[in-house]
Amino acid sequence: MTNAKAETAITPTRADNYADWYLEVIKAADLAETSSVKGCMVIKPWGYGLWENMQRALDGMFKVNGYANAYFPLFIPVSLLEKEAAHVEGFAKECAVVTHHRLEARNGKLVPAGELEEPLVVRPTSETIIGESFAKWVQSYRDLPLRINQWANIVRWEMRTRMFLRTTEFLWQEGHSALATAQDVDAEAMQMLGVYADFTENWMAIPVIRGEKTEGERFPGAIRTYCIEAMMQDHKALQAGTSHNLGQNFARAAGIQFQDEKGALGHAWTMSFGMSTRMIGAAIMTHSDDDGLVCPPKVAPHQVVIIPVIQKPEVRQQVLDWCTQLKRDIEAQSFAGAPVRVHLDARDVQGSKKVWDWIKKGAPIRLEVGPKDIEKDAVFMGRRDRKPRDKQSVARGEFLAGVPATLQSIHDALLERASAFRAEHTRNIDSRDEFYAWFTPPATRNPNDPTPIHGGFAMTHFSGDPALEAQIKDELGVTVRCIPFAPDEPGTCPFTGRPSAKRVVWAKSY
Amino acid sequence: MTNAKAETAITPTRADNYADWYLEVIKAADLAETSSVKGCMVIKPWGYGLWENMQRALDGMFKVNGYANAYFPLFIPVSLLEKEAAHVEGFAKECAVVTHHRLEARNGKLVPAGELEEPLVVRPTSETIIGESFAKWVQSYRDLPLRINQWANIVRWEMRTRMFLRTTEFLWQEGHSALATAQDVDAEAMQMLGVYADFTENWMAIPVIRGEKTEGERFPGAIRTYCIEAMMQDHKALQAGTSHNLGQNFARAAGIQFQDEKGALGHAWTMSFGMSTRMIGAAIMTHSDDDGLVCPPKVAPHQVVIIPVIQKPEVRQQVLDWCTQLKRDIEAQSFAGAPVRVHLDARDVQGSKKVWDWIKKGAPIRLEVGPKDIEKDAVFMGRRDRKPRDKQSVARGEFLAGVPATLQSIHDALLERASAFRAEHTRNIDSRDEFYAWFTPPATRNPNDPTPIHGGFAMTHFSGDPALEAQIKDELGVTVRCIPFAPDEPGTCPFTGRPSAKRVVWAKSY
Repeated sequence: MTNAKAETAITPTRADNYADWYLEVIKAADLAETSSVKGCMVIKPWGYGLWENMQRALDGMFKVNGYANAYFPLFIPVSLLEKEAAHVEGFAKECAVVTHHRLEARNGKLVPAGELEEPLVVRPTSETIIGESFAKWVQSYRDLPLRINQWANIVRWEMRTRMFLRTTEFLWQEGHSALATAQDVDAEAMQMLGVYADFTENWMAIPVIRGEKTEGERFPGAIRTYCIEAMMQDHKALQAGTSHNLGQNFARAAGIQFQDEKGALGHAWTMSFGMSTRMIGAAIMTHSDDDGLVCPPKVAPHQVVIIPVIQKPEVRQQVLDWCTQLKRDIEAQSFAGAPVRVHLDARDVQGSKKVWDWIKKGAPIRLEVGPKDIEKDAVFMGRRDRKPRDKQSVARGEFLAGVPATLQSIHDALLERASAFRAEHTRNIDSRDEFYAWFTPPATRNPNDPTPIHGGFAMTHFSGDPALEAQIKDELGVTVRCIPFAPDEPGTCPFTGRPSAKRVVWAKSY
Repeated sequence: MTNAKAETAITPTRADNYADWYLEVIKAADLAETSSVKGCMVIKPWGYGLWENMQRALDGMFKVNGYANAYFPLFIPVSLLEKEAAHVEGFAKECAVVTHHRLEARNGKLVPAGELEEPLVVRPTSETIIGESFAKWVQSYRDLPLRINQWANIVRWEMRTRMFLRTTEFLWQEGHSALATAQDVDAEAMQMLGVYADFTENWMAIPVIRGEKTEGERFPGAIRTYCIEAMMQDHKALQAGTSHNLGQNFARAAGIQFQDEKGALGHAWTMSFGMSTRMIGAAIMTHSDDDGLVCPPKVAPHQVVIIPVIQKPEVRQQVLDWCTQLKRDIEAQSFAGAPVRVHLDARDVQGSKKVWDWIKKGAPIRLEVGPKDIEKDAVFMGRRDRKPRDKQSVARGEFLAGVPATLQSIHDALLERASAFRAEHTRNIDSRDEFYAWFTPPATRNPNDPTPIHGGFAMTHFSGDPALEAQIKDELGVTVRCIPFAPDEPGTCPFTGRPSAKRVVWAKSY
């Protein structure tokens, strides 16, 4: 599909083919590319810059919550993974297995040699290997709570991969803690879900619904999984972060025991939580438009880009000097706890090409500066949350004083737009027929689109029957994304007619 | 060996058994521990805290030098690794090989299943996989220089491992760049070696010798390897960082080609450089003593530790309040470009135990604060570069104003001490006999010590014969650590009687 009519930087547009649009945005913004290793991507500097800023914000939040960073082995012996039955069941089907420790030339070909006595799995998550350390570190109630976070790469052998959303290798953080009681561990899981929701809304500008997963969607080995769910522009849900109350399952498997204040020995209660580079995919699909990426200002690698517009070579140095001083003055401003990140694009290419490059990369604020602007002591400003041609001249001093407020206003506009979008495509549904119709895409849509767009989130009462949930998943590809944290509001399940305590969120999902 | 006589926190002492002392320091400082995965360690919060501060400093230096961070796949297809012949030859003997992508239950046992068409190697370094991307990113001279850095985990299947120094998995950064000319690439390799030397001396307080490796010690596939070498307290050398001029070898293997300004097509010139968690081992073996770790102040996780000394419960709150305010006031000071990192140890354990805990962990400044200190408006200060009992009362205001200077003075003292130590154990040697005697440990040393201590660094003229170098390595376990960057100073090789341009550094090494 091409899009000859519209003047957009990205072809196809979202309306034409959302899945292809997503890949084109990644390409146009130079975020990442595929590699020769199946399902593994290369995260390019602009994409990694987003991740670095996300890391910095999250890391600070974890530290405030008492978490210290540490690092655990990449490899997990199969015998260790096996200790928690539900856990290994969940991960055995999709893990990279190391079986040899060298290569040897045989018939002119390098083949694996030096077979290991016990195969090693490349970590698909680290509960088991971290549990082994926790068992050594925890002896007494004085050692609790124990709160550890790890920034690491993870491998899950996915059959169908999609950049950022589902890749064989991805980057993440995983927090793990051990606590003394059932109450403490559940409170900790809720607390860290709150941190995720705060980060996702206040740093990524993505509104989320907080809730609990149903049994079928729980983390393998957990007794409760909490999650935050966001709506993408194609009306699908994306799970943006999870925290798991693991009860005593992993403590029993790993032998994490402690003596309480009275000297009694018991198992600790553990929990874990993780957020990954998938969040970059969520940001793309929440904010970006038919002109490319829109970076949430707080994590944008460059928050302001200065584009010198130089027609005549003789003014080049003067314009560059003025822009260099402007850059310094903007950097002296602070936003979201750090100096404003400014880039001066001094490349020797046409001004209009530069402008479109930065639109596609989603820089929150663009400043075009030519001799006329300098004469007026002004900048020509474009905001990425507005149309490309919606630009205005702003006096230099006024712009400078307002940089933090402008960035905050872009953040607010993105969050508000996404919230309104979600509200528009969320409906309370009370009949089975309406539910099925909601998830059936209109026939009028582009027949070439492999992922035609349906209604959105359906909020229905639900009696909680796992077999019914499986049947709906089978028929519509729709699942319960979460049971929201909300006061009970009793009603009737439209599928079974049975009573239900509150509405749940149904959606197609990534 | 025990050490009943001396009053030291670490047993054995360095003089008793250096190798065991090293492991005991790691344990006493709670830096890391072994795991159930052969050769892989768990880096605990105090050790990882050091690494985080090292990362922050290095990352800033790389960015100043034009490097952007990115991330490349963990896995390298064997066919890609094979493209550079010397490179694969160097790494094939010690790499973890992934051959399957799931586990399957067979006879009640989980076994590898889903064999891969092509085995994947867990990256032992990333020249080949990054080269593949560079070939896509570089088209024209305008794309050069291209400078990329990656923070990643690395796997090399070492047979004999030693915490931090040589582990199967380790953490590192690897910088990679592509440049237009032979001159540019060599200058870049020298430039980044300079960054390493700057970091090692000015952040880690470890003096280094900069130089070039001989042919036998070069990185597999490089045309030149530059290195910085440090002397440990057992007189052995430790290679603290390397940069490699790869010439056009990897560009040819990966097809990194560009059109120059005249339109001619040619291969780029590439280089790489890496520094790893091994540097933590270097810091331990350079600065620490028989009481435990000594953290270089600029990278210490806590630079100042406040230890409330509370004998009577009724003063507890008053002392804690005073210490909390003190903590805030110290944090308002800045050192090495960041707020001073302060920890208030409010644990409910004896003051003297806390003091020894922080001596063993190597916190640069300890402050003991009890009711009498508060009365005097003073702190009782211990510096980790001095004896544990060498403490002094300092007026609060005076201490506060002097925090940055005190930390800098500890840094200077460590660097100076290490430099003096190296000078003391380095000798210009001009005869073969003296050389052999230098590397033969005295018979009077502890016979139980597995690594008896010899002379140190020998600076000799050397005619450069690889066979002779191999013979000396065979007979003494000694190699040329580097050919220092120093003006030529012609002389005669004591081994061959042939002329030599300058002295080289010989040493036993880690």
